[in-house]
Amino acid sequence: MTPGHRTEPAEDSRVTRTRADVARTALDVLTREGSDALTHARVAEIAGYSKTTLYTHWPSRFDLIATALDALGEMPHHPRTGDIRADLVGELKTFRQAVLDLRLDRVLTAMAQWATVETMSEIRDAINTNAQRPIRTMLGEFLEGAQLEAAISMLAGVVACPSLMFGTVPDDDVIEAAVDVVLKGAG
Amino acid sequence: MTPGHRTEPAEDSRVTRTRADVARTALDVLTREGSDALTHARVAEIAGYSKTTLYTHWPSRFDLIATALDALGEMPHHPRTGDIRADLVGELKTFRQAVLDLRLDRVLTAMAQWATVETMSEIRDAINTNAQRPIRTMLGEFLEGAQLEAAISMLAGVVACPSLMFGTVPDDDVIEAAVDVVLKGAG
Repeated sequence: MTPGHRTEPAEDSRVTRTRADVARTALDVLTREGSDALTHARVAEIAGYSKTTLYTHWPSRFDLIATALDALGEMPHHPRTGDIRADLVGELKTFRQAVLDLRLDRVLTAMAQWATVETMSEIRDAINTNAQRPIRTMLGEFLEGAQLEAAISMLAGVVACPSLMFGTVPDDDVIEAAVDVVLKGAG
Repeated sequence: MTPGHRTEPAEDSRVTRTRADVARTALDVLTREGSDALTHARVAEIAGYSKTTLYTHWPSRFDLIATALDALGEMPHHPRTGDIRADLVGELKTFRQAVLDLRLDRVLTAMAQWATVETMSEIRDAINTNAQRPIRTMLGEFLEGAQLEAAISMLAGVVACPSLMFGTVPDDDVIEAAVDVVLKGAG
C-alpha cells in the first residue's frame, strides 16, 4: 500500500484517482460542514474509502486540510478592463461571489485556525498572497508603502470582515463606496 | 450533581467557582492552543476537574466555547479625546494590541468556525457588534449608509485582514494611512 513503490501504471492511476477523490471530498467537507467536521472518519465515509486508506496516505488531520487546500485550485478573478474603478469593484464582487459559492470564509478560518503548524502558515500565506495579487497589482500602479498595504487590507476587509464577523456579505453599494473611498482618499 | 437544586450556600459558591475556573481555562486553551484543542479532556486536565464534571455542566464542545467567550469580558477600547484622527488611530492600535495580547484573531476564527450553530452565530454577532461600537459611533458622526458600512469594514480590515490572512499585525504607519484614507476619501 505504499504508493510510488510499484511500477504498474494501473496502480499509479488508481492512487492518483484516490488522491483526487479524497482532496475533493476533504474540500467539500471543509466548506460545507466546517473545519471541525474535517476528520478521517467523515472523509472516508463520504468518499467511500476505508479509514485505513485515509490514514495511510494522510496520517494527520493537518494532511487532510492541506490536501483540501490543494483541491481549491486557482481563485476566480475579474478580467481587467483598464478602468481602475470598474476593475476594483469587479474584483471585490468576484471575491464576494467566491465567499458565497466556494465558502472562502470557511477556508480562511480553517487556514487561520491551523496556522500554528508552520507548514500550514506557509500554505496559507501562499494562498492569500496569490488571492490578493490582482488587487495589489492594480493598487500598486498608483500607491506604495504604508498606503498600499493599508488599501489592500481595507479592500479585502470590506468583503472579509462582514463575512467572518457577521456571516454576511456587503451589498454592491458598500463595495462601490469602499473603492471610491480608496480612490479618492489615497489618490 | 445538578447545580441549583441544592440550597446550601457552600455548594452554590463551589459551583460558581467551578464555572469561573472552567470558563477562564477554556478561554486560555482557545487563545493559546487554538479552537481544535478546546476539548473536554484538555480543559479538565488543565483546570484540574474531572471530565465527568465538565460533561455535566458543559455537555457539548459548543458549551465549552460559549463559556470561553463569556470569560472574554469587555473588549479594551481607546479613551476618546475628541480628535477624530487620533481617536480612530488609537482605537485601531488598541484592537491590534488585543490581537497580540488576547489573541482575538483566534477568538474571531473560532466564532466564525462555530457559527453554523445558530446560538453561536448570535453570540458572535453580539460580541462583534459590541467590539465595533466605538468605531461605528465615531464614523457615524460624519458618515452614513453604504459609506459608513464600508468605512467600518475597511478600518476593521486593516487590523483583522493581516492578522487572519498572514498572522501579522500592521505597523503604525499602515494604521495611520488607513485612517487618513477614510478621513480624506469619505469626508
